[in-house]
Amino acid sequence: MPTRIEADYLIETAYDPRWAAEAAAGEQSSGTFVPVPGETPELKQRSAARTETLEILGTSSSPSLPGAGGANGSDTTFQRAKVTLSWPVENIGPSLPNLVATVAGNLFELKQFSGLRLLDIRLPDAFADAYAGPKFGIDGTRRLAGVADRPIIGTIVKPSVGFGPKETAALTKLLCEAGLDFIKDDELQSDGPACPFEDRARAVMRVINDHAERTGKKVMFAFNLTGELDQMRRRHDLVLELGGTCVMASLNSVGLVGMIELGRFTELPIHAHRNGWGYLSRSPMLGWSYVAWQKIWRLAGADHMHVNGLSNKFAEPDDSVVASARECLTPMFARKPCVSMPVFSSGQSAKQVPDTYAALGSADLIFAAGGGIMAHPDGPAAGVASLREAWDAALTRVPLADYAKDHAALAKALETYAT
Amino acid sequence: MPTRIEADYLIETAYDPRWAAEAAAGEQSSGTFVPVPGETPELKQRSAARTETLEILGTSSSPSLPGAGGANGSDTTFQRAKVTLSWPVENIGPSLPNLVATVAGNLFELKQFSGLRLLDIRLPDAFADAYAGPKFGIDGTRRLAGVADRPIIGTIVKPSVGFGPKETAALTKLLCEAGLDFIKDDELQSDGPACPFEDRARAVMRVINDHAERTGKKVMFAFNLTGELDQMRRRHDLVLELGGTCVMASLNSVGLVGMIELGRFTELPIHAHRNGWGYLSRSPMLGWSYVAWQKIWRLAGADHMHVNGLSNKFAEPDDSVVASARECLTPMFARKPCVSMPVFSSGQSAKQVPDTYAALGSADLIFAAGGGIMAHPDGPAAGVASLREAWDAALTRVPLADYAKDHAALAKALETYAT
Repeated sequence: MPTRIEADYLIETAYDPRWAAEAAAGEQSSGTFVPVPGETPELKQRSAARTETLEILGTSSSPSLPGAGGANGSDTTFQRAKVTLSWPVENIGPSLPNLVATVAGNLFELKQFSGLRLLDIRLPDAFADAYAGPKFGIDGTRRLAGVADRPIIGTIVKPSVGFGPKETAALTKLLCEAGLDFIKDDELQSDGPACPFEDRARAVMRVINDHAERTGKKVMFAFNLTGELDQMRRRHDLVLELGGTCVMASLNSVGLVGMIELGRFTELPIHAHRNGWGYLSRSPMLGWSYVAWQKIWRLAGADHMHVNGLSNKFAEPDDSVVASARECLTPMFARKPCVSMPVFSSGQSAKQVPDTYAALGSADLIFAAGGGIMAHPDGPAAGVASLREAWDAALTRVPLADYAKDHAALAKALETYAT
Repeated sequence: MPTRIEADYLIETAYDPRWAAEAAAGEQSSGTFVPVPGETPELKQRSAARTETLEILGTSSSPSLPGAGGANGSDTTFQRAKVTLSWPVENIGPSLPNLVATVAGNLFELKQFSGLRLLDIRLPDAFADAYAGPKFGIDGTRRLAGVADRPIIGTIVKPSVGFGPKETAALTKLLCEAGLDFIKDDELQSDGPACPFEDRARAVMRVINDHAERTGKKVMFAFNLTGELDQMRRRHDLVLELGGTCVMASLNSVGLVGMIELGRFTELPIHAHRNGWGYLSRSPMLGWSYVAWQKIWRLAGADHMHVNGLSNKFAEPDDSVVASARECLTPMFARKPCVSMPVFSSGQSAKQVPDTYAALGSADLIFAAGGGIMAHPDGPAAGVASLREAWDAALTRVPLADYAKDHAALAKALETYAT
């Protein structure tokens, strides 16, 4: 574990990359543009950020982002490099909000760079002492969902808006009976006047508790409590009181202080939704890598982290999805792993299961499908069965086509879903 | 004022732009990929997002962002358009966190788009009723800073890290004596072990209160209280108790729930720092326009909003800076304007003053300079004087060069600072 805060960046610059990196280090620590009364070399040295390593990766003939300096006619080359900066933890103390201002603050706007992306961060143990991390993680989620050795099979309430509490509860009943382990609210539905949180939670939990009494299986429902602090507290307490087993929050809506508070008071796993992730990441030479970003939220308490899915309906390529999911399962600190359960979703069906398992090497995930369940020709129960069968096949290393020979739901799914 | 929530986007797509816009509207409201039991046309219609207007702007021969669909060989053209979507406020109620998930959620990742940027939002009056907006704004800030008719002249404590409480207080003393109206902590310095917030606040306020007793002028100091909720509360209360007149928070560190809480409990103006803004905005066909983004934070309570400065040291062009600053002064609602004071900073000196005033048409701003004050050859007091003189000239429509003839500090500044 590092004794300093470390951050890796992908940079692109028309200047000498080492000079540009030093400029970023200065901007984000004790640099001043003009000498200031009272500053001394010792004082600046104590707090200065350092360039730890710099590796040239290649060149580009045009700048990835506008506004950069240093270009000198049409023959300018823009060098790309991976650079690691480090800071003394004493600059900020083990504070997540201040960490963000330090590793992801003003430096994205510096004229020295025609591209800058935060790839990864590594934190001293002081951060592990200061934050609780996920309170439930994999084991706690498995215990509450009653699923031991295979992925948790999930789905989402759709349409995300339009349904009132009654319609949501009716759909939940159907989904419970279809054999799902996990159901989540959509990120667009929290406490809309047409579907108030309290009414929805009561109606849904009545269905889930009835089903649990009849079958012994309590389906995990992630109630979207995204809102202001007092609202989140009240909604959390209501879900807990009703016997619910999960709450959901939109990270970019709630923000870091909201998530830290939720992480501290929650007595239920937090299903963390990353909607808005696109604006943080989709420009390849700007913003955040998920590898860096998810560490902040895991430390704050996220038990489940959305990672998109293979062959998804969004713009993200598969290798990025796989890197995100693996990272969620990689311990952050030796004595506090802060492991979150990755949530695969978006256009998922039985077809993606073998590749997902091969890429992740683990069954510790939530595998969520919408159309992959609801559009199964034999109905939602067959949809769920097809996913269970696909995972049984993957976990026992049997090709899907072979397993489908005597598993009808899977066979029909493989015919139905083109990926 | 609209009765629905409206959002304007700049989009780029290889598909029919109207179809792509409808896909975004569906994704962000009642769209489902497969028919779902219980949904009805009435129910979907009630909640559906609508495309209000669509204006084709032009074409591009290559996609701005990777991962988009619809390209069909090398002769694909990508059309750009400005599109306005709208939602019934009943979908979410007047909730800022849920607004963000709705107007800035999953849509940035849709394959339909090779570019998508949120340009502006317009909110129904229900939002004005639900949030307080800035508690101090221009009038409250002017009253507390004791500056009536001209811009508030400010600077920043640098080096941002390295100084302990004693050094910070010593610099503050120098800056008070130099005639500044406003001083701010750097965004990198909140409560580091080498410069604890409480010690810094006590040391600095001793200097500021002494200066006020001697001169009658209480300099406004924006103490960076960025941190967790309880920390922010304690720090705010301490500043208030010590007679301080401003607190500062980094918006991207604190997040929306944190800022809403701070906005509710604060009894002091909130100086809102936008560090990290680059990762939200620097890719021209992705992310957020400041025009949209700053509305969220003003409604949550930001009294001062950073807007960069003309001829700044960052990558942002001047027209963008001007648009941001003007927007901060534009009322959001007829009965609750939520006007924030724009903060100009980054490489500012007397030279930029006339253009800044010409562009903004208002003296309701904080004009902050570092080197533009500290590097003045005749010292910081002359640096402050040069800015005051430059603003006197601009406000009375006298060219700087003329005014400099009998204003020595300004004359020296114009020689010294190349912009």
